[in-house]
Amino acid sequence: MSELGRSHYCGELREEHVGESVQLKGWVQKRRDLGGLIFLDLRDRTGIIQVVFSPEVSGEENVKIADRVRSEYVLDIKGKVVARAEGTFNNKIPTGTIEVLAEEIAIINASKTPPFMIEDDVDASEELRLKYRYLDLRRPEMFNTLKMRHQVSTTIRNFLDQHGFLDVETPILTKSTPEGARDYLVPSRVHEGQFYALPQSPQLFKQLLMVSGIDRYYQIARCFRDEDLRADRQPEFTQVDIETSFLDKEDLIALMEKMMTLVLKEVKGVNIQTPFPRMTYDEAMSRYGSDKPDTRFGMELVDVGELVKDTEFKVFANAISGGGQVKAINVKGAAEKYSRKDIDALMEYVSRYGAKGLAWFKVEEDGLKGPISKFFNEDQQAGIQKTLEAEVGDLLLLVADSKQVVADSLGALRGKLAKDLQLIDENKFNFLWITDWPLLEFDADAGRYFAAHHPFTMPVREDLPLLETNPGQVRAQAYDIVLNGYELGGGSSRIYERDIQEKMFKVLGMPEEEAREQFGFLLDAFDYGTPPHGGIAIGLDRFVMLLAGRTNLRDTIAFPKTASASDIMTNAPSHVSHDQLLELNLQVKL
Amino acid sequence: MSELGRSHYCGELREEHVGESVQLKGWVQKRRDLGGLIFLDLRDRTGIIQVVFSPEVSGEENVKIADRVRSEYVLDIKGKVVARAEGTFNNKIPTGTIEVLAEEIAIINASKTPPFMIEDDVDASEELRLKYRYLDLRRPEMFNTLKMRHQVSTTIRNFLDQHGFLDVETPILTKSTPEGARDYLVPSRVHEGQFYALPQSPQLFKQLLMVSGIDRYYQIARCFRDEDLRADRQPEFTQVDIETSFLDKEDLIALMEKMMTLVLKEVKGVNIQTPFPRMTYDEAMSRYGSDKPDTRFGMELVDVGELVKDTEFKVFANAISGGGQVKAINVKGAAEKYSRKDIDALMEYVSRYGAKGLAWFKVEEDGLKGPISKFFNEDQQAGIQKTLEAEVGDLLLLVADSKQVVADSLGALRGKLAKDLQLIDENKFNFLWITDWPLLEFDADAGRYFAAHHPFTMPVREDLPLLETNPGQVRAQAYDIVLNGYELGGGSSRIYERDIQEKMFKVLGMPEEEAREQFGFLLDAFDYGTPPHGGIAIGLDRFVMLLAGRTNLRDTIAFPKTASASDIMTNAPSHVSHDQLLELNLQVKL
Repeated sequence: MSELGRSHYCGELREEHVGESVQLKGWVQKRRDLGGLIFLDLRDRTGIIQVVFSPEVSGEENVKIADRVRSEYVLDIKGKVVARAEGTFNNKIPTGTIEVLAEEIAIINASKTPPFMIEDDVDASEELRLKYRYLDLRRPEMFNTLKMRHQVSTTIRNFLDQHGFLDVETPILTKSTPEGARDYLVPSRVHEGQFYALPQSPQLFKQLLMVSGIDRYYQIARCFRDEDLRADRQPEFTQVDIETSFLDKEDLIALMEKMMTLVLKEVKGVNIQTPFPRMTYDEAMSRYGSDKPDTRFGMELVDVGELVKDTEFKVFANAISGGGQVKAINVKGAAEKYSRKDIDALMEYVSRYGAKGLAWFKVEEDGLKGPISKFFNEDQQAGIQKTLEAEVGDLLLLVADSKQVVADSLGALRGKLAKDLQLIDENKFNFLWITDWPLLEFDADAGRYFAAHHPFTMPVREDLPLLETNPGQVRAQAYDIVLNGYELGGGSSRIYERDIQEKMFKVLGMPEEEAREQFGFLLDAFDYGTPPHGGIAIGLDRFVMLLAGRTNLRDTIAFPKTASASDIMTNAPSHVSHDQLLELNLQVKL
Repeated sequence: MSELGRSHYCGELREEHVGESVQLKGWVQKRRDLGGLIFLDLRDRTGIIQVVFSPEVSGEENVKIADRVRSEYVLDIKGKVVARAEGTFNNKIPTGTIEVLAEEIAIINASKTPPFMIEDDVDASEELRLKYRYLDLRRPEMFNTLKMRHQVSTTIRNFLDQHGFLDVETPILTKSTPEGARDYLVPSRVHEGQFYALPQSPQLFKQLLMVSGIDRYYQIARCFRDEDLRADRQPEFTQVDIETSFLDKEDLIALMEKMMTLVLKEVKGVNIQTPFPRMTYDEAMSRYGSDKPDTRFGMELVDVGELVKDTEFKVFANAISGGGQVKAINVKGAAEKYSRKDIDALMEYVSRYGAKGLAWFKVEEDGLKGPISKFFNEDQQAGIQKTLEAEVGDLLLLVADSKQVVADSLGALRGKLAKDLQLIDENKFNFLWITDWPLLEFDADAGRYFAAHHPFTMPVREDLPLLETNPGQVRAQAYDIVLNGYELGGGSSRIYERDIQEKMFKVLGMPEEEAREQFGFLLDAFDYGTPPHGGIAIGLDRFVMLLAGRTNLRDTIAFPKTASASDIMTNAPSHVSHDQLLELNLQVKL
């Protein structure tokens, strides 16, 4: 690395370098003055090395300069690597048994006192960290996350390259389409009153590349959605976008498992068993109340409807007779940990998911205890206990409601309790395929069906007749990959026959003319020898977040946006000049 | 490759496969019917293989199916590889000594007759090719260019990865800045009346990554300019974006030469000598009339001002006395090839570059001939001949004008003549560094200086005092890389000290308040220990175009835009719904 003005990186020095002359460039992490000696901790992207200045070795002049430096000054240091005296080792850093006796020092650039300390356990607000993102990224945990992101994408690229996939760039200035999330628009200057849209994904372009016979495509692609943001959403995000022709679903799944296990091995040193477990959508919803279950812990949802439908507790009986469900989770050994007040808080929590109540029992030596236990006779209590494999000390939580509300509320509650009770082994990486998705979801507000994934997903062939008679029953040839309770990506076989695609648009309530106007090029393409094809998109930001053990997507992105889609460092978005708007024939209406 | 439903790709079969059973998937290139046999040329991304159907081997039923297929049908074929009979070899394709005797055939998808033939020498208009881009990309030369693009970016990524560079993604939704080209704007829905801008380059973000101590950054980055387009421009383009800290210009240049030679070796099998030649900006303008000279041929510009300043031809004398130049090029052996009418056409050509005339001589046994030769005595003619190393049969072309017009017109003429006369060895790859750029260019219309590269380029230190006294004389620490007459990329050391950056903004006529408003975050960053840094950006589209021996940038991009920035396949840009504009608080003024 001498080519760029240093002989070594600070954090890469080891005992084997003792006796060597080195040149280092880096930032001052800390300066101490001890008995006439100056100790500087010098930092670069690889870590920290201690540099010592003494009048004897460094010369009076250099000691004076070293005395003047402050945190975050940029230095050029020449010196010799020596072993530290025993008893002065620093076990916290890999360079802790050596130090550099400085022979020369030059201040390359000075620094004001930074607004927060450049260290991992920083207590600055995220807003301050984002405003000074260039300082935040100096913190080792931030640099290491970016480095891990690089390793992940490099591993994926090399894997796909070796498997014959071509990296093809697709446009960012594309056409606005009505299906899906809200588009970011880009006004055209040349075509008055017309707009480009930033792509929500390269979906149509990658399908057209399959029509082109590219056969195997990938791209680490930037995508855009102008949605109201949540903690795990960003207006621009990155996906590993993959498409192949003549694929068999099983082949693609096997290829993806190979890729994922390679990433885990290379980046985390973790061996993952293949094949990954699979679960149907229905089973996931039934057992976990979620289409992306975290399987690192149990606490599954158990249907107790049969057991309680005839009890005196009318809430349960009515739920069942009204077509709903009564389900329960068993929080093992938690009876003592949750007071009545705590359970009220859980009740409040599930109400956000539409649940009108949360019933509960604590399991004691002489049966179930709780405000509603009186409605259940001994047999019924025993039945519940047995079904839930409940033992003394367990806390049983029950929701009676529509199938959807039961799943949503108990699914969320299960996740919350696992976090609160620290039931999750953070070293586990549980991959899971969710299969047999419904093709369509009915939206009561809009009064029509929406595509559960996207309108280009192939229906299961034997369900095709149902498209016209009972669209809600049509299954999709789709499969999601889930990691530790997060949806990592979604794959599917695509429609490649014009008539099926036209039927699909019709089911989605799109008039033929509009389908033609919006997607005519795709329908036309299907006329010219389109191969069967399919693919998958993996959320890179989320994948890196999970691998890095972080909980905030923003920590995986060098320059992220806030929840209001702002960059508070550069102050974007911002007002633009009147001339710029004039050129675009636009007027802002306030 | 059997994993995806085929045993081999069509174009990869060779004599070594004779006797093997194979399964192929591909498109019908051609169908012929010969004496009861059906011959299909089956194509995939690797090439073509001949498939033969006979009643004996294939069965009557399969022969019937094969008889029904047409061009671009998608087929699934099973059969056996056999050697072709001698005398029936096809030397034009690598599979030409073998063929596949079909045992099974299935039509996967049918095709209408395509609007143009899927072959390299297509005669369709570019408009038709762009409308049916998914068919155009089936043509081998288009696929091979995309494949070469993949190889170039893969080679570059691996090289940079091995040299410690981290691939870091920077935002696409950024802040609009007034310097440089016109921004594409993106209205914000959340922040009323405010806009993001698509980045013209990741310049500021990569500099901030250096402030962050990332040390070595790269990105194959999408960039956007809303400019009026020329043949070699696209509204969105891709650059290999590189930045390093603590760099020495020589180190970066050496690294880039290593990278470029690796690409040439890997992708073209061509060995390039290093170090690449270098030329100062002044020398390039003087010898070639261009800051990106094509050095694959000579025909350099020669200053004949001294020789002609006292002649009776007043146009020359006046040009010199008015502070201009008289320069000439010697078109070797071209006297016979250019009639007076042809030369009139050249005169018309240089007039586009501002030249008011084009003087010429043909060299004959008894001296220079031409309409103005009478103004030059024997000595003067001999002097011109000697200076231009002119021999009998040469054509000498001269322009007398301001330095700029002489350079522009003769520089362009030199390039045109070389093309017309086929003087260029298309197998040569001549890299060249252009150094010692001016920092600033004065724009007479705007009445102020503009940055020759960008406002973040470091001036040569010894020229710093001139920033305030004579900005036009300040040299930049900048270096462009040129390949075969195209600007491939531009590199520079960057300003990393706040006071120099502030002076730079001032020279560019930016009020302090505006500099603060637009670039405050960068100026602030310089206060916190910014390392010296620099980098380069290489135009990937153009690089691929030159490597692929093409002349049209659009051929290197899967889905390019036309000269009016339209995608005529998807019909983008397009009108959007009233609701979409309402949400953005925008109104289109027509």
